[in-house]
Amino acid sequence: MFLPILFIFSLLSFSSRALVQDFCVADLSLPDGPAGYPCKKPAKVTVNDFVYSALGVAGNTNNLIKAAVTPAFTAQFPGLNGLGLSLARLDLAVGGVVPMHTHPAANEVIFVVQGTITAGFISSANAVYFKTLNKGDTMIFPQGLLHFQVNSGKTTGLVLVSFSSPSPGLQILDYALFANNLPSDLVEKTTFLDDAQVKKLKGVLGGTG
Amino acid sequence: MFLPILFIFSLLSFSSRALVQDFCVADLSLPDGPAGYPCKKPAKVTVNDFVYSALGVAGNTNNLIKAAVTPAFTAQFPGLNGLGLSLARLDLAVGGVVPMHTHPAANEVIFVVQGTITAGFISSANAVYFKTLNKGDTMIFPQGLLHFQVNSGKTTGLVLVSFSSPSPGLQILDYALFANNLPSDLVEKTTFLDDAQVKKLKGVLGGTG
Amino acid sequence: MFLPILFIFSLLSFSSRALVQDFCVADLSLPDGPAGYPCKKPAKVTVNDFVYSALGVAGNTNNLIKAAVTPAFTAQFPGLNGLGLSLARLDLAVGGVVPMHTHPAANEVIFVVQGTITAGFISSANAVYFKTLNKGDTMIFPQGLLHFQVNSGKTTGLVLVSFSSPSPGLQILDYALFANNLPSDLVEKTTFLDDAQVKKLKGVLGGTG
Amino acid sequence: MFLPILFIFSLLSFSSRALVQDFCVADLSLPDGPAGYPCKKPAKVTVNDFVYSALGVAGNTNNLIKAAVTPAFTAQFPGLNGLGLSLARLDLAVGGVVPMHTHPAANEVIFVVQGTITAGFISSANAVYFKTLNKGDTMIFPQGLLHFQVNSGKTTGLVLVSFSSPSPGLQILDYALFANNLPSDLVEKTTFLDDAQVKKLKGVLGGTG
Amino acid sequence: MFLPILFIFSLLSFSSRALVQDFCVADLSLPDGPAGYPCKKPAKVTVNDFVYSALGVAGNTNNLIKAAVTPAFTAQFPGLNGLGLSLARLDLAVGGVVPMHTHPAANEVIFVVQGTITAGFISSANAVYFKTLNKGDTMIFPQGLLHFQVNSGKTTGLVLVSFSSPSPGLQILDYALFANNLPSDLVEKTTFLDDAQVKKLKGVLGGTG
Amino acid sequence: MFLPILFIFSLLSFSSRALVQDFCVADLSLPDGPAGYPCKKPAKVTVNDFVYSALGVAGNTNNLIKAAVTPAFTAQFPGLNGLGLSLARLDLAVGGVVPMHTHPAANEVIFVVQGTITAGFISSANAVYFKTLNKGDTMIFPQGLLHFQVNSGKTTGLVLVSFSSPSPGLQILDYALFANNLPSDLVEKTTFLDDAQVKKLKGVLGGTG
Repeated sequence: MFLPILFIFSLLSFSSRALVQDFCVADLSLPDGPAGYPCKKPAKVTVNDFVYSALGVAGNTNNLIKAAVTPAFTAQFPGLNGLGLSLARLDLAVGGVVPMHTHPAANEVIFVVQGTITAGFISSANAVYFKTLNKGDTMIFPQGLLHFQVNSGKTTGLVLVSFSSPSPGLQILDYALFANNLPSDLVEKTTFLDDAQVKKLKGVLGGTG
Repeated sequence: MFLPILFIFSLLSFSSRALVQDFCVADLSLPDGPAGYPCKKPAKVTVNDFVYSALGVAGNTNNLIKAAVTPAFTAQFPGLNGLGLSLARLDLAVGGVVPMHTHPAANEVIFVVQGTITAGFISSANAVYFKTLNKGDTMIFPQGLLHFQVNSGKTTGLVLVSFSSPSPGLQILDYALFANNLPSDLVEKTTFLDDAQVKKLKGVLGGTG
Repeated sequence: MFLPILFIFSLLSFSSRALVQDFCVADLSLPDGPAGYPCKKPAKVTVNDFVYSALGVAGNTNNLIKAAVTPAFTAQFPGLNGLGLSLARLDLAVGGVVPMHTHPAANEVIFVVQGTITAGFISSANAVYFKTLNKGDTMIFPQGLLHFQVNSGKTTGLVLVSFSSPSPGLQILDYALFANNLPSDLVEKTTFLDDAQVKKLKGVLGGTG
Repeated sequence: MFLPILFIFSLLSFSSRALVQDFCVADLSLPDGPAGYPCKKPAKVTVNDFVYSALGVAGNTNNLIKAAVTPAFTAQFPGLNGLGLSLARLDLAVGGVVPMHTHPAANEVIFVVQGTITAGFISSANAVYFKTLNKGDTMIFPQGLLHFQVNSGKTTGLVLVSFSSPSPGLQILDYALFANNLPSDLVEKTTFLDDAQVKKLKGVLGGTG
Repeated sequence: MFLPILFIFSLLSFSSRALVQDFCVADLSLPDGPAGYPCKKPAKVTVNDFVYSALGVAGNTNNLIKAAVTPAFTAQFPGLNGLGLSLARLDLAVGGVVPMHTHPAANEVIFVVQGTITAGFISSANAVYFKTLNKGDTMIFPQGLLHFQVNSGKTTGLVLVSFSSPSPGLQILDYALFANNLPSDLVEKTTFLDDAQVKKLKGVLGGTG
Repeated sequence: MFLPILFIFSLLSFSSRALVQDFCVADLSLPDGPAGYPCKKPAKVTVNDFVYSALGVAGNTNNLIKAAVTPAFTAQFPGLNGLGLSLARLDLAVGGVVPMHTHPAANEVIFVVQGTITAGFISSANAVYFKTLNKGDTMIFPQGLLHFQVNSGKTTGLVLVSFSSPSPGLQILDYALFANNLPSDLVEKTTFLDDAQVKKLKGVLGGTG
């Protein structure tokens, strides 16, 4: 016989003495650190820690921007912890808009699953890069730069979004400026927007001060 | 007047003195280094450097594995250079198989656009994680581990693949073992495969030695 | 004698066979890559590659924002290439404002050398963190988040700025939105600003479209 | 006197206010994270945390592969935690074989302490790089690529192995394919191996399904 | 009306589902790891976690080296945790000296706020780079290299120091050699210093052995 | 037949479209950058780029320190470029000494192949960690900290050294202080060494000034 039974034990002991950290499924009950969350014990990890189904369900676009973003970041999909990437699903009804925003911690690439999307970003040098994308197109949005996506077609849009971090972050411009308690005079002084404009959007978005 | 014309010049000069490297579109004509390719000059960069359309076209699955992978890595999509992520499109005809393989340089997450896919990976501890995925499911395959995808449904499968590197690499097991000039006796000694099995697959895959 | 002359040669040869890359002064004449610029030849490096004097000169704040930023990034101070940090000097006349902006590629810490500065940032969760700082105070602005500094005192302000990257980037909000050719309707759709407001600021800042 | 006694206190206080993290000896009793284990308290660290003696003892090669690997990874040598390297000792009796395997998380360099070793790896491009090494030779095996070492000489081989990670991982091909519960039909479909071959090796290595 | 009230809810829910880790203020009560300390809960973070005032106070230079270093590293300023930079303040009375030292974990750039400082470093190739700096000058000291600063002017010196790590470390040469229990014969054998010299400095600095 | 010939072409085309960067053998004729050297063209890479034999030859210890270090860093072994590790061989005749030194850019682990070595390092907190090591012992020396090795046995010592960088750097204390043109008064002021001591060692090591 080619390989007798003793072979098993030799290889097994060989393998079991080696430390492995192939993955680090987040234990969200413990505090995170600069590199992510502590790992769930390997013995408790199952295939379900690596599979996530929420991106299969269309987000509810029955809102004013006619858009919905469904993230699969570490908080939703703990298997991504420490792996350097994450996903999101973007649904855009006809006329839908993802307002000007940035991801402070990740580069982004989108893939248009269906629909016609006009998307763009603005560089640090104030150059504008925007284009109308069709089904099957991909487009890059570099880290930390203002960008947007709008449904410029006549059908519902579906976009799959990939990020270069499991926790890309998201800062929506209007929310940052108008939906908190940053005093109006500071907003005006640092954006050059008119007082009436600031107060109008603060009113709509629930900002105070 | 709120903001006189002089304001333009002050802000402009302010901005133009700041160095920016928002992105680094690969200049594929120059030699790459450990961190990627040198950057195309910013003045020559256009929106088309950030848009890629080849993932919109189904790969040709009229082959024996009934599968096709269309990559959007740095070599195909130079805008990804240095950005820490890339994409690929996987088409799987009914019965299609992506054979056992690894990506030496990236973690992977797939999103099933359509079809029913059975996919899995094996950990360093030899644990098997596999599951049948449906439309809208995502699944993680950690860096460097053997994994596979097969169309286990009755319709064509389409999968969008995201990687945590712009150059994830790809080592297909059968190709590594049987499609080159690695001597058969070394293959047999290091895999415990029978001589007949090795020679059969070498014959099919064009290996010598 | 304790150490005869032969000792010199043994240690010398020992040392000269070791490769060193203590630093990598940028050769700005060559194309950069994702990790920075190629290094100037060590034999051509002098102490002057590590010393930079421009931050000792007050910037000209005789402009409408009454502010001036003098950067010491890789482009100005090539010795910083690859070293993971950079500096800038911020001069703020009475009433001076550094408008809302982000650094896509770096964390920032400021040190108030003189004056009274009100500074703040907005987190991804839309929380506002702002405070009035006096001489000797330091404040952190995390990467990619909108932030601002205004001179809220009665004297000239001087701030030393440190970044966690030799090329932190700089995106000034008003410039990104109003000082380029991004069409007004896209600006309005993605920021919810009124058409009049957008056109007013485009006019002032030289934007078109 | 050149340096009076007061000098001690000034330097001491100066030093004690500086934070240091020269090392981070793993506290293996706490959960690890993506960057490694939490650190043992500095006050409890002794020189013994930095010294490990198990690599001085020959592994037991009295097994079918006539090989033994003795790792010094974080799990065995906690002082390596966070330091970006680790070691292992490889003993190869005459005829000994380290079967085809990968390290998903590290590059590897071996140094042949004694004996004659034939070693090789296969690249992503399916190119084979193999050579017979003698005492004193070193060879590189890049991260994530299939590789092997066999004793091709007439004496016992001893190899010191260095890795670019404190937790390089180890996936042995035969174990991944044949020593777990991955169903035989999936193995066959994704490797093109014959059913008889798969079942034979599953039998030997204890695989099921 | 341009943006009705419903808009608020749609954007709010959109935002709250996204995970963010804009910062990671250290919880110094928990053990640190290779990447830093675990994060304080976001809900407990206030603007005071990002502001630190101790650098505004001159250090006490009434000591033999006539120098004082006041650090703002993670241990003193926990908001810097994970952010890749830190600061320190250096006060140098007339004749003050920061003795030869290294920072094992960070590159350094200094900015001379006032005074005249002679500073320098020695490269791995034993080249010396030193220069007399005046108010407003900046100078780089690469990671891990021996360097020094002395007040070579006739007035008090004040220097702001930036590091490329929140925990740069600090090894003062004389302290490492003469202020601990490293046996004198080992010091002498490995530094070629005379026994009398070693014992004199051990006496002054409190070393034993 | 199980796998007809057409299969070859499908898999081949599949593979050839994927970009791979498994390794990056340094092209030392081009300027390096912060991440290392540009890569040699893959088509020109052979197995000899991954094999290096110089560590098999004992260094010449017929010198005053009775020691020799033979490095295998990127400059000597270009295959290590970008791989995050390197090796060196240390020969120590009876009484041999590797003087106090640091590696600014790498952690180090040694393996004692033969002999008895007393080795140690000093932490940033001035704690001393030293021990006498025997054949088969390994010891860690963290990045940037002063350390030494002496042959404390009665036989020749041989040590294999591993580093966590392909270019660890090397700063030998006596060389940095006494073998260049750093003026004696600056050496004395920043080390507190006596003038006679400094001049004696400058004389021996060839320093000037």
